[in-house]
Amino acid sequence: MSPLPSPTASRPPLRVALAGIGVVGCGVVRLLEANRELIARRAGRAIEIVALSARDRHKDRGVDLSAYRWEDDMGALVTADDVDVVVEMVGGADGPALTLARAALGAGKALVTANKAMIAHHGLDLARLAEARDTPLKYEAAVAGGIPVIKALREGASANQIARVYGILNGTCNYILTLMERERASFADALAAAQAEGYAEADPTFDVDGIDAAHKLSILAALCFGTKLDIGAVTATGIRGLIAADIREAEALGHRVRLIGMAERDETGLYQHVQPCLVPADHPLAYVPGALNAVVAEGNFVGRLFFEGAGAGAGPTASAIVADIIDIARDEYGPAFAMPVDALDRAATADAGARVGKHYVRLVVEDRIGVLAEIATAMRDAGVSIESFIQRGDDADGGVVIALVTHAGPASAIHAALATLSASDHVVGTPMHMPILAL
Amino acid sequence: MSPLPSPTASRPPLRVALAGIGVVGCGVVRLLEANRELIARRAGRAIEIVALSARDRHKDRGVDLSAYRWEDDMGALVTADDVDVVVEMVGGADGPALTLARAALGAGKALVTANKAMIAHHGLDLARLAEARDTPLKYEAAVAGGIPVIKALREGASANQIARVYGILNGTCNYILTLMERERASFADALAAAQAEGYAEADPTFDVDGIDAAHKLSILAALCFGTKLDIGAVTATGIRGLIAADIREAEALGHRVRLIGMAERDETGLYQHVQPCLVPADHPLAYVPGALNAVVAEGNFVGRLFFEGAGAGAGPTASAIVADIIDIARDEYGPAFAMPVDALDRAATADAGARVGKHYVRLVVEDRIGVLAEIATAMRDAGVSIESFIQRGDDADGGVVIALVTHAGPASAIHAALATLSASDHVVGTPMHMPILAL
Repeated sequence: MSPLPSPTASRPPLRVALAGIGVVGCGVVRLLEANRELIARRAGRAIEIVALSARDRHKDRGVDLSAYRWEDDMGALVTADDVDVVVEMVGGADGPALTLARAALGAGKALVTANKAMIAHHGLDLARLAEARDTPLKYEAAVAGGIPVIKALREGASANQIARVYGILNGTCNYILTLMERERASFADALAAAQAEGYAEADPTFDVDGIDAAHKLSILAALCFGTKLDIGAVTATGIRGLIAADIREAEALGHRVRLIGMAERDETGLYQHVQPCLVPADHPLAYVPGALNAVVAEGNFVGRLFFEGAGAGAGPTASAIVADIIDIARDEYGPAFAMPVDALDRAATADAGARVGKHYVRLVVEDRIGVLAEIATAMRDAGVSIESFIQRGDDADGGVVIALVTHAGPASAIHAALATLSASDHVVGTPMHMPILAL
Repeated sequence: MSPLPSPTASRPPLRVALAGIGVVGCGVVRLLEANRELIARRAGRAIEIVALSARDRHKDRGVDLSAYRWEDDMGALVTADDVDVVVEMVGGADGPALTLARAALGAGKALVTANKAMIAHHGLDLARLAEARDTPLKYEAAVAGGIPVIKALREGASANQIARVYGILNGTCNYILTLMERERASFADALAAAQAEGYAEADPTFDVDGIDAAHKLSILAALCFGTKLDIGAVTATGIRGLIAADIREAEALGHRVRLIGMAERDETGLYQHVQPCLVPADHPLAYVPGALNAVVAEGNFVGRLFFEGAGAGAGPTASAIVADIIDIARDEYGPAFAMPVDALDRAATADAGARVGKHYVRLVVEDRIGVLAEIATAMRDAGVSIESFIQRGDDADGGVVIALVTHAGPASAIHAALATLSASDHVVGTPMHMPILAL
């Protein structure tokens, strides 16, 4: 049995070094200072910051760091004798973050990271290093910010076979989609507003193209399915292709558009894909507003679990990082991906085209005789059966908007029909298609 | 650092005895059988049922238990050398459940329980026993069924000062409220339907009077505020006083009625109360349908966390119980209430009357001259300021329904006004009042 701290025993402080003192790093400093006593009671020992390191010591960070030792060289955090835990907040899948993480684990120090890209790309190697040195590797902040979803899946739902894990994993996209919904805005206008308000970066690629969500999805999938992390198998379609009419038609159909990262295991393998979907109004993901994140896991005994909270920001991210540190302080941790790396399966990539479901399809077409017939023929030839069809007669983006919903069928049929139609001279721009989330 | 299982080391199975083989007990057997291999991978060792005990061995339970050793005497589970973990599913705050729990912990065995009443009444004593013997006491299934909310609060949100913890803690009441909403049913009809469908018991007191929710709330409060469990300080108002018009008027005001258990710490002490509330449509609790449960925690760094899932039933409850067993198998556990019992504060009971907020008030009155003036005068004399007032002119329960919403003010003023009005000959039945949940 594990060592339960005796109420009278006084354990030595856990000594923490922070690498990368940006918005999140400052949040961790503030949190550990503000909740110091409470954390010591909960952790059974004090948690002390002993050293900081970042590129620029003299940047004004709006928080007084003068009480802490500063190391210009991040490597010094790893070699220091008085550091038990290294917190990596440098960012980037490779480079200094990875060098630091490897060195810390290799030196037998505990590693806490918020770095989804690094975990998605190198999580298995880092977990092996951690196993070899019997030291913790924790990354709660890497997925869904402040929501303790890594813990909920690794531990809370651990008795279940998970059928699907999915959710809203990128707050920037959800903020943009919420703006498009509420303001009837175009994607470009909503993106510009999100940038102006600090919810989207100047180069929004990582967020709006689904790359960030793909990183997080790969981590959730490994935890839920006991499979080896495989970021190369995750595909992503972002939200750039959405137009205002998509949001409006989705609503008319009783749905909301959300960027969903979905992982599901079927007989062909593991499906991991990020794409905009139509979420039915009676699904809780339809009510996740603004920059929030939410994760759903469906277990064979527990049924549907739903977790919602802030997916980013200094406070929520710091909350997740410090929760990891408290777990370490309590000696309550184990293998990073719930089981040793060698026990994880290597999953085949599922045949995405074989996935059966209803789809929303939207085309912008020239308003001329024969276009409807062309669409209907392409659908028929590809074997797509149409359930409903809407042409409102209003223009958008240089043409007429046609939206339709298919009967349940394989995604490959939709792709084939749209490949035909994309080549048509009468179709303007790229057709949009989104699966309708099955309850 | 805690012992991380080496990938090659083979740990001995964790041996589990189940006491109380009802719906939940059978669920645990089914789960451990169905997910046996997966659980062994995740736990790092096999989890084996070695013995069962319940009052009636020969009852048909719909599951084959012949492979397991049966003990007619529950005490034999505690004295058996081959039992590591005793799972208590007997139920009841005292009696055989408590005797078993004390004996198991006293014998140094791990105890897993789904028994909210026992934890609410005797959790501190049991936690002391567990501490004295350095053995785990786990109770994830006691609150919100399959939702891993004990873990989320004890560990996931552990870095935060929690401002409020609250939620829908009783699925039976939420099912009844959802029926009243959808079918425009009376409380009595909705209760009868819930009973017919197995969602409510023949004697529904425990559920509809808020007692079950109060037990769960007391546990959440202790975890979130680091206070000693104090079920005597929890007050509860159930949902029997609701009429169809309350649900309708709440909707007209953009709200839904939910039975909310709320714990909040203020300068006067700890407030712990279960009562029906008006939940604004832009709060996620407004979208929790049917028998689901949901818990909200508001932390000073993480912001608002929201967890939803099945609050009862064999599968979800078994999921929570087995998650606890897996934590024990992994040696990932610590003090039952996040810190040793002696480190928990003893909180004063907050002055509930001083709580400031907006309220919904509904009266059924005789349709005669002067009644409105009587209401207005009683409100004025008690210092209650009225924001809106609705009299639709339709009858209900032998009178005319009058609903009003107050400006923010102390609850004591509402209570004073309603005490006056309850004594009036012109008021039919008992006035209803509900706080409007502040976002």
